[in-house]
Amino acid sequence: MLSSADAVVNRGRFVPHVPDDRTAVVRHRARVGYVDTDKAGVVHHTVYLVWMEAGRIEYLRARGVDYRRFEVERGLAMPVVEANLAYRSPARFDDEVVIETWVSSVTRARIVFEARVLRDGEVLCEGAITTAVVHLAEARPVSVPEELRDACS
Amino acid sequence: MLSSADAVVNRGRFVPHVPDDRTAVVRHRARVGYVDTDKAGVVHHTVYLVWMEAGRIEYLRARGVDYRRFEVERGLAMPVVEANLAYRSPARFDDEVVIETWVSSVTRARIVFEARVLRDGEVLCEGAITTAVVHLAEARPVSVPEELRDACS
Amino acid sequence: MLSSADAVVNRGRFVPHVPDDRTAVVRHRARVGYVDTDKAGVVHHTVYLVWMEAGRIEYLRARGVDYRRFEVERGLAMPVVEANLAYRSPARFDDEVVIETWVSSVTRARIVFEARVLRDGEVLCEGAITTAVVHLAEARPVSVPEELRDACS
Amino acid sequence: MLSSADAVVNRGRFVPHVPDDRTAVVRHRARVGYVDTDKAGVVHHTVYLVWMEAGRIEYLRARGVDYRRFEVERGLAMPVVEANLAYRSPARFDDEVVIETWVSSVTRARIVFEARVLRDGEVLCEGAITTAVVHLAEARPVSVPEELRDACS
Repeated sequence: MLSSADAVVNRGRFVPHVPDDRTAVVRHRARVGYVDTDKAGVVHHTVYLVWMEAGRIEYLRARGVDYRRFEVERGLAMPVVEANLAYRSPARFDDEVVIETWVSSVTRARIVFEARVLRDGEVLCEGAITTAVVHLAEARPVSVPEELRDACS
Repeated sequence: MLSSADAVVNRGRFVPHVPDDRTAVVRHRARVGYVDTDKAGVVHHTVYLVWMEAGRIEYLRARGVDYRRFEVERGLAMPVVEANLAYRSPARFDDEVVIETWVSSVTRARIVFEARVLRDGEVLCEGAITTAVVHLAEARPVSVPEELRDACS
Repeated sequence: MLSSADAVVNRGRFVPHVPDDRTAVVRHRARVGYVDTDKAGVVHHTVYLVWMEAGRIEYLRARGVDYRRFEVERGLAMPVVEANLAYRSPARFDDEVVIETWVSSVTRARIVFEARVLRDGEVLCEGAITTAVVHLAEARPVSVPEELRDACS
Repeated sequence: MLSSADAVVNRGRFVPHVPDDRTAVVRHRARVGYVDTDKAGVVHHTVYLVWMEAGRIEYLRARGVDYRRFEVERGLAMPVVEANLAYRSPARFDDEVVIETWVSSVTRARIVFEARVLRDGEVLCEGAITTAVVHLAEARPVSVPEELRDACS
């Protein structure tokens, strides 16, 4: 796990810091669909959040957690409680992008995922997504289960 | 225009501050669609960005700027360069929400919109969306045009 | 209720037929968002399905059925089992469109909604959406409940 | 190319018919995201259209057409003019699905793509998507260019 001090606070915003330890980073690829573009001819800013969400699932899978099973068996979900994104350069239709995901901080109540989206090595977007854990049926927050804590440490 | 000092920096994140001057705030309503929900039974976190995008269009309309015409006539667009969101409480299917939008800062290169989404007076999500202005055909940033600057001041 | 014979079969496809009885039609309005557009500068073809979904909710509400409550109390949902759409003319950013929804057929197992999307009286898209009713926990189809049948007749 | 007679008309709706010649079919894979689900716990019906859109791009790529370049160089786009879908069984979060795409008909003005979405060999959704070709700047339909016609025959 990275120290949360690795995150650079820049004019009041969270800017992710890619860990030196490359084994801490999980990667997956996505292809930009037509539906992802908008009339400005570039990828809509919501789509990066979608890619980062998939990145969290892939991160957990790579660490041995089947998130689908986790939700079903535990009756829990992992909502986003904060999202801080910096858009650097636009992705375009049919681009192949790489999403890199890692964890910068785990506390009793929160897991902070950081992520960046790249195209040919160029960073297009980076951000920090803070998640909590909630009990779905009871609609209340719970402590981060050990299973997730271990996977993210 | 609000002073940017009105924005509270909270643990490294931008937290919006609703202006005392209620005339600075533009409101519109949205109804939560089935498509907006996810398997956790709540509104997906990307949807708040969609509502806030509509909020910026409605803000400009209320201030006399037809954003559609603006883009066409000027060949410009207003991309999001940063998004900082705090999710407080989930919206649910068929909820009627109110989106409040205002401008917290205008500089030569950036307009910072702040927004919050409410249901029956309860804040569900709030955030700051930083936008730039780009020339679409030349794919380069330009200064915020006077027309936008005036509308947002 | 309309006779299903009102639906015109045109080259193997369902084409909706607006009922003469205007009281059978429920209308709602939508504003085209930036996110709804794609790089061709027009509204993406999926968005019409989203508007028609909202149309079904509004149709039921106008007929006395609160669909949110219906799902919760009954443990049922109303999935789309067929969708047949004809796209006539593109909607564009910031257009205000009207969605007209009516029911063309109710059987023991299916409710067929028809809908069209208009802008200033021009039909942009029209289609027939066939829905079933399923018991969510048991994941099995059930007969259309009397409450829905009555609302749609 | 398949004869359009291969398409089975079933109660007024187009039902796709998978060609015997498996070389006519182009496949790609997709992973169901959390964002793709709705409160019923299954994939929203719009998502299949998104997968089928990607299928058309992959179909053309496999046949030697880079659709991105095609649009840019020709100033053309390929809008959906009809969509006819039959939903057989729901996809769920984190499923890996296979999308099979082929062309059932090419005329001077239309290319009809057929597609089906499978999970472990089970058909979840199948449909026919009819596309036209338009000149973007002039906003008018044009004949299907030879380049597309050849790729789809």
